[in-house]
Amino acid sequence: MTKKGRVFSGARPTGRQHLGNYLGAIKNYVAMQDDYDCVYCIVDVHALTTMDTTMELRTNTYDMALDWLAAGIRPEESIVFIQSHVPQVMELHTYLSMVTPLGKLTDLPTFKEKVRQNPNNVNYGLVGYPVLMAADIVLYKADYVPVGIDQAPHLEFTRECVRSFNYRYNCKALIEPQMKATEFPKVLGIDGVQKMGKSLNNHIELASTPEETAKRVMTMVTDPQRLRRTDPGNPDVCNVFSLHKMFTSAEDLANINVECRRAGIGCVDCKKKLAANLNSHFEPFRARRAELDQKPDHIWEILDDGAIRARKIAEATMVEVREAIGLP
Amino acid sequence: MTKKGRVFSGARPTGRQHLGNYLGAIKNYVAMQDDYDCVYCIVDVHALTTMDTTMELRTNTYDMALDWLAAGIRPEESIVFIQSHVPQVMELHTYLSMVTPLGKLTDLPTFKEKVRQNPNNVNYGLVGYPVLMAADIVLYKADYVPVGIDQAPHLEFTRECVRSFNYRYNCKALIEPQMKATEFPKVLGIDGVQKMGKSLNNHIELASTPEETAKRVMTMVTDPQRLRRTDPGNPDVCNVFSLHKMFTSAEDLANINVECRRAGIGCVDCKKKLAANLNSHFEPFRARRAELDQKPDHIWEILDDGAIRARKIAEATMVEVREAIGLP
Repeated sequence: MTKKGRVFSGARPTGRQHLGNYLGAIKNYVAMQDDYDCVYCIVDVHALTTMDTTMELRTNTYDMALDWLAAGIRPEESIVFIQSHVPQVMELHTYLSMVTPLGKLTDLPTFKEKVRQNPNNVNYGLVGYPVLMAADIVLYKADYVPVGIDQAPHLEFTRECVRSFNYRYNCKALIEPQMKATEFPKVLGIDGVQKMGKSLNNHIELASTPEETAKRVMTMVTDPQRLRRTDPGNPDVCNVFSLHKMFTSAEDLANINVECRRAGIGCVDCKKKLAANLNSHFEPFRARRAELDQKPDHIWEILDDGAIRARKIAEATMVEVREAIGLP
Repeated sequence: MTKKGRVFSGARPTGRQHLGNYLGAIKNYVAMQDDYDCVYCIVDVHALTTMDTTMELRTNTYDMALDWLAAGIRPEESIVFIQSHVPQVMELHTYLSMVTPLGKLTDLPTFKEKVRQNPNNVNYGLVGYPVLMAADIVLYKADYVPVGIDQAPHLEFTRECVRSFNYRYNCKALIEPQMKATEFPKVLGIDGVQKMGKSLNNHIELASTPEETAKRVMTMVTDPQRLRRTDPGNPDVCNVFSLHKMFTSAEDLANINVECRRAGIGCVDCKKKLAANLNSHFEPFRARRAELDQKPDHIWEILDDGAIRARKIAEATMVEVREAIGLP
């Protein structure tokens, strides 16, 4: 079947994936496989720019790959690999850095934000983060990159890198990736306030047992105005309801929407329904995951195979790049 | 024969070498081979940080390699190669950039000087120049780097990089290179004022014909106070005399020193002597160069062979580096 082009996306190795990762990325990764040649990268080198410790880099990579594969990423079809296994990306990063003004990097709002987050760790690599990201994308000659509207400036930076390089060396070696506008639902954590994230421990892991999942769901913050069972609730401000939208049938959803507003259903019952739906939704995932986890070597083999295929594309691009620059 | 350790040095591909390159680097490169395992790198990637055009990168690399080999660098013994042919250096550069504070780079006097020279071309790669230089050195686990006293801070930066990396990842993967204090005679151009350099066109190429060499020498500026043949001269401020010191026998030198000061010898005669001595000194060099230049493929083969040997060392270092970082 002819696909519509190549998609590239990368994610930091954050270990066991949670609902935020699932709804924000993995689900989309799985779906895109039907229409595109997909290149999915676990960006361990990016992770180094801000990491406090690299102790868990290997297990986090393994756990993330395991979740991806269990969720339906098809490695025989898509390329799934670890960024550092294709060192060409660091080579291209170096060459792109020669055509990237320093000021353009230090002026980026994302850089300023990172400086705010890590005032004591502003390393040279952190400044070049967008350049490395650009190298990731263009190394594989990706046609599309799925980005949310808020990440559009990042992709525009990559496009500018491509134009600078091609102009500087009077060539067409690199291609400008297009934005594949994607809606990334904002998934809040069980606190109902902050974005779901491992670091905040407000997350629900996909691989949790049904019991663990139910336990986490039961602690979720709902409509803060609904103090008593007899108070009517407002699903519009309830994070439990937000998740119901993703995992509950239209009929049940409509029913909850009505019953909550007239106190016909309590938060406990509502959460029990959500937990049950989550558990039934992730039952096949968990079964596949357990099966895959029986053979850890196989996961690493899949990543090695992905790296081999990625390096082939990468090296072909680098041959063009070196030629375009005029390197001896 | 057991050598005293490994020496690394790199030079930008500047094409046909001149007396400044010879006295400042090549002569020392040749001599060090007797005592050290030498790794000599043509740093084409560094050249990209400030280059206006890469049109001449290939010919400049060839011409420089040719001059090095003709001057006595022994490729069967020393490793002579092109920087970009060992992409591991860019990989290590990326990893070192994660442990290098940005401020440390932008505060370097050499960076400020480069900004002054290239105000319109302050690219991200230029900022990272010292990091790439550090990667060059430590990738080959060099024990020594020949540096002049004015370049000592550069090497100290490399040593700090090594300490940061080893401390950050609690390892001994990288080794701190030692400074091999070297005297680099300051070679002035034929203008007698500025440092000899191709860009100023005040240079004398090693590969020039005897006639061209004599012609260049005859235009050299001497003691500016000696206006007439009958004026006594001052060899202490005469660049012709400085070069005599390098290429003229002790006896002749003493004689010139006396005769110039009492106007016993004129500048024209003095220059003729210098030209003759230069030509006789470089006669074997020119013969070897002409012979080598008969087979350009052989020069590229030598550089390819050097790259193979360099990559072997580089890859061994990178295996340790990746392991130390804890990359998956």
